[in-house]
Amino acid sequence: MVEVPEKYKDLIDRPLFTHLATVRPDGAPQANPMWFVYKDGLFWFTHTDFRQKYRNIEHEPRVAFSIVDPDSAYRYVEVRGVVDHIEKDPTGSLYAELSSRYGGDGQAPPDAPSRVKIAVRATHFSK
Amino acid sequence: MVEVPEKYKDLIDRPLFTHLATVRPDGAPQANPMWFVYKDGLFWFTHTDFRQKYRNIEHEPRVAFSIVDPDSAYRYVEVRGVVDHIEKDPTGSLYAELSSRYGGDGQAPPDAPSRVKIAVRATHFSK
Repeated sequence: MVEVPEKYKDLIDRPLFTHLATVRPDGAPQANPMWFVYKDGLFWFTHTDFRQKYRNIEHEPRVAFSIVDPDSAYRYVEVRGVVDHIEKDPTGSLYAELSSRYGGDGQAPPDAPSRVKIAVRATHFSK
Repeated sequence: MVEVPEKYKDLIDRPLFTHLATVRPDGAPQANPMWFVYKDGLFWFTHTDFRQKYRNIEHEPRVAFSIVDPDSAYRYVEVRGVVDHIEKDPTGSLYAELSSRYGGDGQAPPDAPSRVKIAVRATHFSK
């Protein structure tokens, strides 16, 4: 397991948007802004099981994401990792938790029955 | 050529960081925060010819990037595209131009001799 370097811990603790890069089945990349939370040594993302990103990670479990410090734009972390596992989340519990973390109302989403938790294990922290 | 949708024009005009997703030769994705400018129907990025991202796009010219509105985090654009061409930029002119656009000193960088301009043609704007 790769530990989060000390100098990046604040970027990972704060509710900052990350931009998740995945690879589509045809080999082209995709980039999407995402909520995340780091817990138990894993990065957690909420998603549904019917969207393109889900099909992407089923096909290619390696992902990457970057997080910029909004208070100092030249301070950022780039992470590469791999999907460790995916859990069904039919109550939308992770969505609700992330909604609270990011200043929202903490409610489960209308598409809760299709929600999944995507757990990513970091393999590289760059710069 | 795919035009920038009207509703995203401000995100592309403003000096916002974008997160560029590329695919590494081994098939894994990579995500990096980047400066950009949109000119003559192309998205322009400055880079050097010796870094990983350059090797990535030589191998796989398809890229993706996303831009978030810092004033309204749920407003964003996701773009997919392809590298149209790469130009040598040994005076670092694009770096200097982007430095000014992003509030810097507009000076050419020390690594100017290795600088290239990467021109990306958008193929899809999502959401």
